Amino acid sequence: MGNMVDLNSDLGESFGAYTIGMDDEVIKLVSSANVACGFHASDPVVMRRTVERAVAAGIGIGAHPGFYDLMGFGRRNMNISPDEAYAYVTYQLGALSAFCKQQGTKIAHVKPHGALYNMAGKDYELAKGICRAVYDFDKDLILLGLSGSRMINAGRDIGLRCANEFFSDRAYEDDGSLRARTKEGAMIEDENEAIERVVKVLKTGKVTTYSGNEIELKIDSICVHGDNAHALDFVRTIRQRLTKEGIEIAPLSKVIN
Amino acid sequence: MGNMVDLNSDLGESFGAYTIGMDDEVIKLVSSANVACGFHASDPVVMRRTVERAVAAGIGIGAHPGFYDLMGFGRRNMNISPDEAYAYVTYQLGALSAFCKQQGTKIAHVKPHGALYNMAGKDYELAKGICRAVYDFDKDLILLGLSGSRMINAGRDIGLRCANEFFSDRAYEDDGSLRARTKEGAMIEDENEAIERVVKVLKTGKVTTYSGNEIELKIDSICVHGDNAHALDFVRTIRQRLTKEGIEIAPLSKVIN
Amino acid sequence: MGNMVDLNSDLGESFGAYTIGMDDEVIKLVSSANVACGFHASDPVVMRRTVERAVAAGIGIGAHPGFYDLMGFGRRNMNISPDEAYAYVTYQLGALSAFCKQQGTKIAHVKPHGALYNMAGKDYELAKGICRAVYDFDKDLILLGLSGSRMINAGRDIGLRCANEFFSDRAYEDDGSLRARTKEGAMIEDENEAIERVVKVLKTGKVTTYSGNEIELKIDSICVHGDNAHALDFVRTIRQRLTKEGIEIAPLSKVIN
Amino acid sequence: MGNMVDLNSDLGESFGAYTIGMDDEVIKLVSSANVACGFHASDPVVMRRTVERAVAAGIGIGAHPGFYDLMGFGRRNMNISPDEAYAYVTYQLGALSAFCKQQGTKIAHVKPHGALYNMAGKDYELAKGICRAVYDFDKDLILLGLSGSRMINAGRDIGLRCANEFFSDRAYEDDGSLRARTKEGAMIEDENEAIERVVKVLKTGKVTTYSGNEIELKIDSICVHGDNAHALDFVRTIRQRLTKEGIEIAPLSKVIN
Repeated sequence: MGNMVDLNSDLGESFGAYTIGMDDEVIKLVSSANVACGFHASDPVVMRRTVERAVAAGIGIGAHPGFYDLMGFGRRNMNISPDEAYAYVTYQLGALSAFCKQQGTKIAHVKPHGALYNMAGKDYELAKGICRAVYDFDKDLILLGLSGSRMINAGRDIGLRCANEFFSDRAYEDDGSLRARTKEGAMIEDENEAIERVVKVLKTGKVTTYSGNEIELKIDSICVHGDNAHALDFVRTIRQRLTKEGIEIAPLSKVIN
Repeated sequence: MGNMVDLNSDLGESFGAYTIGMDDEVIKLVSSANVACGFHASDPVVMRRTVERAVAAGIGIGAHPGFYDLMGFGRRNMNISPDEAYAYVTYQLGALSAFCKQQGTKIAHVKPHGALYNMAGKDYELAKGICRAVYDFDKDLILLGLSGSRMINAGRDIGLRCANEFFSDRAYEDDGSLRARTKEGAMIEDENEAIERVVKVLKTGKVTTYSGNEIELKIDSICVHGDNAHALDFVRTIRQRLTKEGIEIAPLSKVIN
Repeated sequence: MGNMVDLNSDLGESFGAYTIGMDDEVIKLVSSANVACGFHASDPVVMRRTVERAVAAGIGIGAHPGFYDLMGFGRRNMNISPDEAYAYVTYQLGALSAFCKQQGTKIAHVKPHGALYNMAGKDYELAKGICRAVYDFDKDLILLGLSGSRMINAGRDIGLRCANEFFSDRAYEDDGSLRARTKEGAMIEDENEAIERVVKVLKTGKVTTYSGNEIELKIDSICVHGDNAHALDFVRTIRQRLTKEGIEIAPLSKVIN
Repeated sequence: MGNMVDLNSDLGESFGAYTIGMDDEVIKLVSSANVACGFHASDPVVMRRTVERAVAAGIGIGAHPGFYDLMGFGRRNMNISPDEAYAYVTYQLGALSAFCKQQGTKIAHVKPHGALYNMAGKDYELAKGICRAVYDFDKDLILLGLSGSRMINAGRDIGLRCANEFFSDRAYEDDGSLRARTKEGAMIEDENEAIERVVKVLKTGKVTTYSGNEIELKIDSICVHGDNAHALDFVRTIRQRLTKEGIEIAPLSKVIN
């Protein structure tokens, strides 16, 4: 750590006649793609094309399983059981892995999407349902989750290699959790500040919390977005700065070992 | 052939709160299960349970990919492109294979479901889309299709091992196709006659067509149903008769080699 | 009140090839049907047939809007906004009302389904989203909800006529809420006791709570089920007893005025 | 006819997080909106907002029912029965009408979408299923279909008022049908030519066919698009030219009477 980090972005979220995201652009700027698996977004035709693109770009491919809620884009909490989570994650992992297999590659990591990511970050039993599915499918997969979350705990307990994700535009509390969006100061609005926080956490392993304290945080991957031109510019700026600082951008399979 | 045949039945077609089929009973009577993959029927929880049951029963597991039409149970023709068929079949194959992998087993065969089976039986390009997906996913999978259909042709052309399915309750035309359901005499109503046809085709490789001619038909698997008690009785009767005739009932992986 | 009560049951929950519920039997025994609207269950073909049957049976027709979660039968909490609830309820109300209009009848009441019913019973803002949709669609509709719930409060505040539902097989707390299913004694297992509670609440307006106190409860409708033969027997027994007690069974439009 | 015509465009085809179409722009340029009803596109939240916008713009609101195939945007033929068509159209009509009712307006016309429009244009029985649903729901609704199609025939036979739609960018055959897209010369690529064809058919009631003959065609509405800036420019040009020719642009309820 310190001289290597992954940049991950959600990809392949289009559906049928609906296009979303600037996949062609962002794919050139990141080291890992979280590929939607047809539950919260995407469809089989989009998934095939997305895997092709990721293979061509030479980046790591991750499964991005979500709630079966296309209408809500997987962003709404749903009260599913750990057993349902196990089955839903397995289904989506398998579907994505088939497109990978056809194209001679493999899934490298799993990052639950949206509300599933958030719920599993706080609910150990739900997280265990997810992590057991991943482990039973392929124990070499890397789980990508919020640093310090219960999902990371569950992944470790089950025996998965886990990667810690950092959100450059979010304030952290003293316990390492993200400051709730509903609270004042939850978002880091200033982009320069956001980038400085990334550099600092990578070089020192520390982040300044909302209350002004310094806490330790081990970081393996930074979440970036490809929704619009502005977001792409931000990714480009991060890349330049990381390069300047001598920090290598590499896929999770290289960062985690 | 002649002393060995597979009995296949559709399994795992329940969905959420909806139960359909007498899976617990029919699973004891067949050698291969065509497992629904969540498009025309089933859901991830049902798929997991169905694979568990099939593994416990020691029967062959096949993928049963269908149209994305739960409301119509995949029985309505849909005008999808060969590329869409490729992607939809891949997705479903992958999803089912994940549950198999978790339980230490593999998919042995693929039998398209309902309207997809019927359309691909007549449309070579659609069939090729399906068969290429199967081959690219795992070239050792067996394609189960209507004897003499274009789907079997496409499967052979692509390099898949193909298994010929026989319908005991349907009349055949002189060219080996099924007599259309809309025509008189399409269904073999008499069960004894149906069973005699099975025995004859297995022992002699011949079937008497609707017009009274004898044609050659190579048969690897017989389609049976588990929807109701009567259907189960019919399967039991077929089993007894086949055993009496010295014909072994075995999964496709043993019948085809 | 006291000499008149409605018996309501969920109807028309089949979907495509999937059949659920003994609709033909229970429809003869109740005075109001809660008709599924295609979100948590049912489809347009089933809805048309269900409205036809309800019209033929001469019972009250209610909309039974639920979460857009067919896989979970609308029984899983989903974190939707009041505005989403407004739109989802409107959509389902409209869809059902079209089948009613075609057959010369009208929707009489609205009873949210499953998890939506439970969530709205405790969340005033969500309940207001639902009730505003109902009111804006047709201010003469009757809202059927749990006696004393926030949904009833919201309905009253908005100007809807509200009907109080009683659950004969559930224990009540001192504040009039249902004892949580996770707690001991939540279910009234003994059927005779369940029926006595119904008679008592109708004749005296009082129910004995779990803690042994007596509280006042105004009751307009009793929820019964038609899932299986046993449930149907229970409905028959309730009917007989109510008749013997001189309590008329009548649709909500007659009970509420 | 001749001095009045409707301009219709598909609207409200966004879904959840997915945005499609430049609704805000095209709504100012047309006299009728075909509003998607949640089967091939749209969702309840989008429908509510779309009806609000159409009311604010003062244009006619039409239902745009389609196949239950969001993944294919309703553009793929599906083999549904006339009874299924009846139920599906009723469901969608009702859903849209509820949003209209809440906002003090009514549906004025019905135009089936995509593959349903095309199939019903050639299949009288399917068309009758659709038209009977419309008639039974509200016999005053106007059916908007391809001039001379079987759908128009079915609508007339059932007693609906019918409006004939003209496609400015498509060649016509001598029998008044559209030249198949797969054939040479099916599309009128030149925009000036397209506009001249519109003016001619409105002023003379005649169109020059692909083979060079002149046939009579009664036209009530012209289909325009709002997908992109270029399409919007074309609508503006048509408007200007029609105005210059003294042809009034008016909603179907005014054109048909």
